[in-house]
Amino acid sequence: MSLKFNLLHTSEQGGRRAQIDLPHHTVETPVFMPVGTAGSVKAVPQDILESLGAQIILGNTYHLYLRPGHEAIRRMGGLHRFISWPRAMLTDSGGFQVFSLAQLRKVTDEGVRFRSHLDGSSHLFTPEHSMDVQIALGADIAMAFDECTEYPADRSRAEESLRLTMAWARRSLDHLRAHQNEVPWFADLGGRAQSLFGIVQGGMYRDLRRESAERLVEMDFDGYAIGGLSVGEPRDLTMEMIAEVLPLLPADKPRYVMGVGYPEEIEQYARMGVDMMDCVLPTRAARHALLFTSEGRLNIKNKQFAEDQGPPDPNCDCIVCRRYSRAYLRHLMQAGEALSATLNTIHNLAYYLGIMRRVRAELDAQTAPVTPSLAR
Amino acid sequence: MSLKFNLLHTSEQGGRRAQIDLPHHTVETPVFMPVGTAGSVKAVPQDILESLGAQIILGNTYHLYLRPGHEAIRRMGGLHRFISWPRAMLTDSGGFQVFSLAQLRKVTDEGVRFRSHLDGSSHLFTPEHSMDVQIALGADIAMAFDECTEYPADRSRAEESLRLTMAWARRSLDHLRAHQNEVPWFADLGGRAQSLFGIVQGGMYRDLRRESAERLVEMDFDGYAIGGLSVGEPRDLTMEMIAEVLPLLPADKPRYVMGVGYPEEIEQYARMGVDMMDCVLPTRAARHALLFTSEGRLNIKNKQFAEDQGPPDPNCDCIVCRRYSRAYLRHLMQAGEALSATLNTIHNLAYYLGIMRRVRAELDAQTAPVTPSLAR
Repeated sequence: MSLKFNLLHTSEQGGRRAQIDLPHHTVETPVFMPVGTAGSVKAVPQDILESLGAQIILGNTYHLYLRPGHEAIRRMGGLHRFISWPRAMLTDSGGFQVFSLAQLRKVTDEGVRFRSHLDGSSHLFTPEHSMDVQIALGADIAMAFDECTEYPADRSRAEESLRLTMAWARRSLDHLRAHQNEVPWFADLGGRAQSLFGIVQGGMYRDLRRESAERLVEMDFDGYAIGGLSVGEPRDLTMEMIAEVLPLLPADKPRYVMGVGYPEEIEQYARMGVDMMDCVLPTRAARHALLFTSEGRLNIKNKQFAEDQGPPDPNCDCIVCRRYSRAYLRHLMQAGEALSATLNTIHNLAYYLGIMRRVRAELDAQTAPVTPSLAR
Repeated sequence: MSLKFNLLHTSEQGGRRAQIDLPHHTVETPVFMPVGTAGSVKAVPQDILESLGAQIILGNTYHLYLRPGHEAIRRMGGLHRFISWPRAMLTDSGGFQVFSLAQLRKVTDEGVRFRSHLDGSSHLFTPEHSMDVQIALGADIAMAFDECTEYPADRSRAEESLRLTMAWARRSLDHLRAHQNEVPWFADLGGRAQSLFGIVQGGMYRDLRRESAERLVEMDFDGYAIGGLSVGEPRDLTMEMIAEVLPLLPADKPRYVMGVGYPEEIEQYARMGVDMMDCVLPTRAARHALLFTSEGRLNIKNKQFAEDQGPPDPNCDCIVCRRYSRAYLRHLMQAGEALSATLNTIHNLAYYLGIMRRVRAELDAQTAPVTPSLAR
């Protein structure tokens, strides 16, 4: 059995409050998933991620395949055990990084041949190989191998890219289903299976997006992602594509928009009915001095904070805002102290996870029974 | 009132179990003090330092004077408040870094003129200025401005260096005593004063060391440090100098050996009667993959640990050893992950602080009343 999706409530605007029961954790949605690229959400220890309420984190297949290698991780019992993360995990297919990081790519129907950005060694990723790697890593959710269509892409390019992604989706699904009992924790977790999500592509063409969604739904994945967004297009277009696709996806499966976004975006998408989102923004921005706060974005390097003894965000009760001042965070950044990345990232993640917590609470409130006055 | 020293027990070998009552914290000794160079024990959040049992940490006057500047820290209420560290702190005099980091030094009886290693700007440190900076920082313990005699140094060089250090000690003491009510927290902490330690120098000449100790004791400092050790000399010589000086220091004042050392050294010195020690070794080594464990030193980068799922130290119950494997720590180091420095440092500090905890417990056991069998 793969994931169980328990839809608790749908708001008038389409926002969904649900639970995704996964082998390692039951995830309350809408959920934001911090990105743990190479087996670490950069600069943050796992116990702090837990205390922040992170329910599910990402691992990047491309990075982990190259280092330390998926076979090593398989031998050590899978990614959860390797990085000591007891809650849920999701791995991407490796496709996105192959296209953005690797060198000398050559795409054929078979797959993508590329050179490692680490040592120039040559590798071939096919849908089958991506599944094999993801099975070895053993995240709760694996992603179909796809080509992330660049922006802008003309129609014929978007059509060709979609053709490839749809063929690879079929092959990904067939291969994962045939090998799903090979996941490292299969026996330990009573025969629960890895889930596989298909990825809707189609560039910025509404009809291609629809076609992509319909064909994937026909294949019957465990969940559906909308990919190829946040690749440089204007935000209206992102919204338009999401709005086009969501109604075509089955109500009883999770919906995941990949690689978004700014705080106001993830809140908006969650209210529209997106269940899952991930983005490097809160963690990457933190390392570059950008803090997200209830008072807006704040470049903590700015001189104006040199003697500002207030907390980074006066409306935040995270462990960073409760203890440290803007002046201290600025100093750490100026002095090149490693603690800077850790504290900034903790706050930004607290902020992102807090947004989702608030949206969930609002959706919960819409379904809460009226409390009898006696019970107060 | 400056520090209160409460000597609980002295062992046959001279080991001392004591308490140092300081304005911000009562420190149980023997104690190891992690180094927080620029206002951060590199890569470790303050709450983790607290949970590791760090009682007192160091700040480096040279670094904090250059960035963010002692006047800014004074305006923000002192170093404790600036970095949000509620327990005890000690600042060095800036002398050591002026001699090791700064450029174009010119030493006169007045003080040291140097250029900042950050921007080449010109600065003059005198004993009076070092005290002014340390008062602004407001650590519980300040250190007299001294010249750390290099190794090897011939006798005339060591004599001249000692002459300077003794003159500067007198000026440091006079200046601090005259201005001790200017420390930022003076009023908040009921008029408690900063303490000042003199620093014994004298190179590797036993008679110069004796002379230095005797003259400092005459000046009546709040505590006494032995400086100019661990500067490249053989360890026998370090031991010899410490053994020469300790008996000359008053039993009712704390004794601090600066800049030591390896785990076996700090244990040995603590058993000889050294109350306080500091060293960058556990934190700096951690960032370079060197872990101190009950099974010896371990270079976590080594290939042999690639799939080693055991804890870094099987006899350690720190938060790192309880949760993470050697294989994971190796991977973090290989992948250049920021978490590597954090986890390695936490373990090494736990190991160092654990040594001192064990020595304290042993000294306590020597004084514990025999438990009546009924009380079991």
